[in-house]
Amino acid sequence: MSEPIYDMAAIGNALVDVIAHATDNFVAQQEKQHGMKRGAMSLIDASRAVELYGDMGTAIESSGGSAGNTMAGFASFGGKGAFIGKVADDQLGDVFRHDMKALGVHYGTNPLAFGTPTGRCLILVTPDGQRTMNTFLGASIELGPDDVDADIVASAKITYLEGYLYDDAKAKAAFRLAAEIAHNAGHKVALTLSDPFCVQRHRKDFQYLVESHVDILFANEAEIISLYETKKFDEACRGAAGKCEVAVLTRSEKGAIVLSGGKSIEVRAEPVKKIVDTTGAGDQYAAGFLFGYTRGMSLQECGRIGALAAAEVISHMGPRPEIKYADLLKKAAA
Amino acid sequence: MSEPIYDMAAIGNALVDVIAHATDNFVAQQEKQHGMKRGAMSLIDASRAVELYGDMGTAIESSGGSAGNTMAGFASFGGKGAFIGKVADDQLGDVFRHDMKALGVHYGTNPLAFGTPTGRCLILVTPDGQRTMNTFLGASIELGPDDVDADIVASAKITYLEGYLYDDAKAKAAFRLAAEIAHNAGHKVALTLSDPFCVQRHRKDFQYLVESHVDILFANEAEIISLYETKKFDEACRGAAGKCEVAVLTRSEKGAIVLSGGKSIEVRAEPVKKIVDTTGAGDQYAAGFLFGYTRGMSLQECGRIGALAAAEVISHMGPRPEIKYADLLKKAAA
Repeated sequence: MSEPIYDMAAIGNALVDVIAHATDNFVAQQEKQHGMKRGAMSLIDASRAVELYGDMGTAIESSGGSAGNTMAGFASFGGKGAFIGKVADDQLGDVFRHDMKALGVHYGTNPLAFGTPTGRCLILVTPDGQRTMNTFLGASIELGPDDVDADIVASAKITYLEGYLYDDAKAKAAFRLAAEIAHNAGHKVALTLSDPFCVQRHRKDFQYLVESHVDILFANEAEIISLYETKKFDEACRGAAGKCEVAVLTRSEKGAIVLSGGKSIEVRAEPVKKIVDTTGAGDQYAAGFLFGYTRGMSLQECGRIGALAAAEVISHMGPRPEIKYADLLKKAAA
Repeated sequence: MSEPIYDMAAIGNALVDVIAHATDNFVAQQEKQHGMKRGAMSLIDASRAVELYGDMGTAIESSGGSAGNTMAGFASFGGKGAFIGKVADDQLGDVFRHDMKALGVHYGTNPLAFGTPTGRCLILVTPDGQRTMNTFLGASIELGPDDVDADIVASAKITYLEGYLYDDAKAKAAFRLAAEIAHNAGHKVALTLSDPFCVQRHRKDFQYLVESHVDILFANEAEIISLYETKKFDEACRGAAGKCEVAVLTRSEKGAIVLSGGKSIEVRAEPVKKIVDTTGAGDQYAAGFLFGYTRGMSLQECGRIGALAAAEVISHMGPRPEIKYADLLKKAAA
């Protein structure tokens, strides 16, 4: 095992989020006419992205992407990280790059020089705080095995991968290569299942991955139910038990279950005064959990840190921390 | 007097805000080394913008610009508006354009096809919620008299102008032309003094403008004190009295004074639970006031609506409404 330089390397789609409030009616209409899926992530092409953006209300822009968000939260806790993901050489790409570097995260992936622009996720936040995502992958789809910096992945305690990468053949190859490098270096591989529809698209692959290549799995209730095609959460838990070293199954306000070594640990959710925007909740849960994990904390403590981060991010618009998570941790410990 | 089609036409610098939290120390250091002015707006060039952005923390992006923000708030109340200001033909320009159109605001200014990119304002928000602004004008500096759509300006009840336009000769000419068209059509001209340092740069011009071309003046305490070179607010009020039809002088949590027809009307501030980011406070005060004005409300009522909008915008990050101001108004009336 080589001596780790990074606490975590994350690989994911490099996206900029475009976040707008939307009425329930608007989302319902879009579901009917365009197959948008309320509360989930749908992939859209460039022309649909232009059309939907034109129909959306005023928005704010924020760096996003599932693994990118997790890396941002992880670095905000004080974790040393590296990110691998592809933007284009354009203004939104500059925004994404700036935000990674501003967190002290190593980000060396070459931008796409020509062709499609930086990918973006058009997010509609309904009055209940729920987010409905529509992703135009753009340049992020051009991520391939050549972009996986073997030295970085081999030198990270954890390599964190998002299930969304499976939506493209090249990114999938990059995903597999990274997992292999991490394991060959004697380090851990973590995976988030990303989204129930993403699980539906890649169920067999994900089942195989979890058993063969993943040490730490993150999934929410809908995702784990989809993965094991069960009706109830308890059955899905039984399906997940023993499949990998640690399975972290989150259930929004019902807290989380962490399965490990035949044990099931319950972690309560952190109360939130008002849910403003659930974007990034799962991503920041993973950030907190993994930060605790790299610091050798108990799984219960890891879960608590995840819950703190998730509670922060859903109390404001946007998928990334508005405060320094290291301060959040200090405050919670005091 | 021609029949108005628009409630308001606003002319200003078309900017995208890049907003980051910053420590007091960081701003103090920047003040010392780079002449940044805490709580105020400094103009910066392209290379300084790149340098400062590199030193800033993670940010969110939002359409901004003083008059642009006021127009956004005005439209959010339900006012029919048009905006004139210049972006480049790039991604940040698309963001600005989208946000105007999403509010139902007419926005027909031709983008700059070549050369400098869309302007941006790098904003540092300190823990007290105060914002310190650093503006790279970019394409917005290319706004000139040719961009003033005479039909639109002539058909607006109010033409709203930002003092910042005086920082460039071409924009200044556009400003004067618009004021002339508005008055020739028998409509009103409103001006915000924008910033105490902006007033310092153009004091004589602004004094002349207020007496000769402005019907409704917006200024905060520091700006009106700078305009009339007084030491105290009361003296500045005496300086402003009778110079134009209505002078709206805002004083943050101390409320506002509206001077008109020899009378002085006090308007109290709307209480705010926690000040998160003061960016856009003055802009949204003007939006609310002018919306009331175009609806024939009393100056006291206009001031109250301004205070409601300002209280909303300082309770979250970003310079524009997060909720529909028409709903805010309904709620306040209930």
